[in-house]
Amino acid sequence: MSKKVPNRILLSEDKMPKQWYNVRADMPEQHDPYINPATMKPVTADDLTPIFAEELCRQEATLQRYVDIPDEVLEYYKLYRPSPVIRAYNLERLLDTPARIYYKYEGSNTSGSHKLNSAVAQVYYNKKQGIERITTETGAGQWGTALAMACAYFDMPLRVYMVRVSYDQKPYRKEVMKTYGADVFPSPSNTTDVGRAILEKDPHNTGSLGTAISEAIEMALKTPNTRYSLGSVLNQVMLHQSIIGIESKIQLEMVDEYPDYVIGCAGGGSNLGGLMSSFMQDKLTQKANPHFIAVEPAACPSFTRGKYAYDFCDVGHITPLAKMYTLGSGFIPTSIHAGGLRYHGMSPILSKLYHDGHLDEARAVGQKEVFEAAVLFAKHEAILPAPESAHAIKTAIDVALECKERGEAKTILFGLTGNGNFDLEAYASFNSGEMENYSLPDEDIQKGLSTLIDM
Amino acid sequence: MSKKVPNRILLSEDKMPKQWYNVRADMPEQHDPYINPATMKPVTADDLTPIFAEELCRQEATLQRYVDIPDEVLEYYKLYRPSPVIRAYNLERLLDTPARIYYKYEGSNTSGSHKLNSAVAQVYYNKKQGIERITTETGAGQWGTALAMACAYFDMPLRVYMVRVSYDQKPYRKEVMKTYGADVFPSPSNTTDVGRAILEKDPHNTGSLGTAISEAIEMALKTPNTRYSLGSVLNQVMLHQSIIGIESKIQLEMVDEYPDYVIGCAGGGSNLGGLMSSFMQDKLTQKANPHFIAVEPAACPSFTRGKYAYDFCDVGHITPLAKMYTLGSGFIPTSIHAGGLRYHGMSPILSKLYHDGHLDEARAVGQKEVFEAAVLFAKHEAILPAPESAHAIKTAIDVALECKERGEAKTILFGLTGNGNFDLEAYASFNSGEMENYSLPDEDIQKGLSTLIDM
Repeated sequence: MSKKVPNRILLSEDKMPKQWYNVRADMPEQHDPYINPATMKPVTADDLTPIFAEELCRQEATLQRYVDIPDEVLEYYKLYRPSPVIRAYNLERLLDTPARIYYKYEGSNTSGSHKLNSAVAQVYYNKKQGIERITTETGAGQWGTALAMACAYFDMPLRVYMVRVSYDQKPYRKEVMKTYGADVFPSPSNTTDVGRAILEKDPHNTGSLGTAISEAIEMALKTPNTRYSLGSVLNQVMLHQSIIGIESKIQLEMVDEYPDYVIGCAGGGSNLGGLMSSFMQDKLTQKANPHFIAVEPAACPSFTRGKYAYDFCDVGHITPLAKMYTLGSGFIPTSIHAGGLRYHGMSPILSKLYHDGHLDEARAVGQKEVFEAAVLFAKHEAILPAPESAHAIKTAIDVALECKERGEAKTILFGLTGNGNFDLEAYASFNSGEMENYSLPDEDIQKGLSTLIDM
Repeated sequence: MSKKVPNRILLSEDKMPKQWYNVRADMPEQHDPYINPATMKPVTADDLTPIFAEELCRQEATLQRYVDIPDEVLEYYKLYRPSPVIRAYNLERLLDTPARIYYKYEGSNTSGSHKLNSAVAQVYYNKKQGIERITTETGAGQWGTALAMACAYFDMPLRVYMVRVSYDQKPYRKEVMKTYGADVFPSPSNTTDVGRAILEKDPHNTGSLGTAISEAIEMALKTPNTRYSLGSVLNQVMLHQSIIGIESKIQLEMVDEYPDYVIGCAGGGSNLGGLMSSFMQDKLTQKANPHFIAVEPAACPSFTRGKYAYDFCDVGHITPLAKMYTLGSGFIPTSIHAGGLRYHGMSPILSKLYHDGHLDEARAVGQKEVFEAAVLFAKHEAILPAPESAHAIKTAIDVALECKERGEAKTILFGLTGNGNFDLEAYASFNSGEMENYSLPDEDIQKGLSTLIDM
């Protein structure tokens, strides 16, 4: 007799993983190396240590399978982890699907998302090395808030470059960061060469994640004993976020489940990379064969309409080149509400996994259908999702309906990466009936891809 | 050897209480009856049933010790309960106190507070009776959001009268309610006689909780098959909120603890009444003797500077008279940021318990010192608290420091009723350095008390 699965599958503190999992250890082939654009040779440790703390540079390169989570990081994790895996009974009932839908909810901490998992680790390693301040960028504000929280805890000064359009439209996000002691500047700003050059050409430039990254790195490089911190894309971030998937696997095992589908939204890849971790390990080591789906916005479709190529991670071309799915560093994404998914590139690890067929599938979904799914979910599951996470909800619903069509009682796991408490202007736009599914013209894709360098 | 207490003491779904506890069953004396101002006689069931669902009228009067929580309500509770009890290790370390500090955190659901506990129950009983719509008021928006969530779940139309100053200053709160399908009107409005009369005298009136209550009740009375719903003060609300205290007691028992101090903020009393429940039962039945502290804002000090007297619950004098600690229904509270604590009266049950010495102590605290405590807590415990809840934090810190002074390793439990995600304009005011501790002039107290009727 099968025991009824509770709504919320809770993991106690003593069962929290004490190691991160590094998927690179089990990948049959590694992603192509980062390239230093000055020498066009693979990036060396010396290239990276002025930007990142040394231990983080090591993690960027390591092929070690398991990495111990430092005690100090575990202590912070225990303030908000393990996060619950929740059975979406109401959603299942509503869809009348034979599928069982589970979601890993990372949004109940104050930063509102999974970003805190890497922020805490990054600040800790910087602190340990004696670094005296950190710079970063933030788009919608989730990463900036997470890093501000971690910096407050470890008593580390922080400067955040916030994409100007979000800075102006999301005053409350800014205020959370300030409450946690961060200095927040709108980007482009006149504090950096990159910012000044952009403002000179276009004083009303509303900014982009790529520009803000350039400014934050420039400031880190020219300020003594300062390092930069990035919330997605990097290998180190995938490593730290692996705790999401490791916990999820344990929690599903507790109720005798294993996912047939693992679904996550993908901007830079930090959430999906984290959620997949243990399940991808099973796939790469032939222990199981879950079907992975990356969900991206139709307005910024790097997997589904981008190119697998070397590209800069930023607009100012300060960063190394990475081989990844990209729309081109010059791609200008439409102003959709899922700010966390408006990035031209994609994690090199996830790009390689997708290119080689281990990450099975990518889907692009429209903004309006995403918000319809979000509101349905909010009403019946009692959590208001972040627009980014709602991309995964939309696809989980689609897959559950496909299961219904085929009469298959499959198990679906999706990542609910964050809550929508700071995205109410997006919901207001949906509530007003003005929102539409945006379809990105081929012309815009071509324009973006034309900014790729010849290699 | 004592086992180390985890940071978060989690209770599994199957251990969630299935009954509410009614403290009235164990009170040696009952509070004085509600009075119908038209007849000046005790309120009868017939007086209340046009306003509240019948089962809720029964709960308002019952002396039954335990009341079964309906299965449908339990199903919703399981979406977000049991809530965690958290050991504030970092705060203890920072204060260098021998005291052990625990808090019950009710803020991780989307409504952001404990208000959902009663909202779900109230909507359910209305639905069961066949009521077709509900009206309510909201100040800061926590109650309105909670009721909107419950109404969306049970498919019940809702009209919310939102204090106009909050309606204008908190557009995002309004938008959450709208996302959950509620109609939201600024109060005073021209949809009711009470509202029109106020606007005629003063077209720029910014509203008050008392006025919004009057409008919501008037609308419920004159609309067919419609009832009103209130988020605090009432006996039914104290009953529903008892789940907070029942869970807390179980969770503390799991780590062999029992509180010497139980501390909660008090506006209308719903949080403190809920948090105290099982512990007050122990006190009234002489099983234990915890020290209870109600914390209120210095700007709206009904316990510490009000009068124990019969008074109206609203400004428009539509409600029955209740015997309670009150500043007078004509008291105009300063515009402090803890909107949920800006109410002239106090739960009749809590008032009676305080008057008779079972609720041991009330303290009034200033706004600036409350926010100082809130930011300290946010940085070290990784949760941004609601301004209301921060009143309890401030007092918990004070008590922990008193314990340090006396070298006493006491156990403190306080209620962290909600998160501050929708209170960022309040934090902005604190961050700007403009906030001050407000001390309420005696003159204002006298002016408020002069609006009490002669009985």
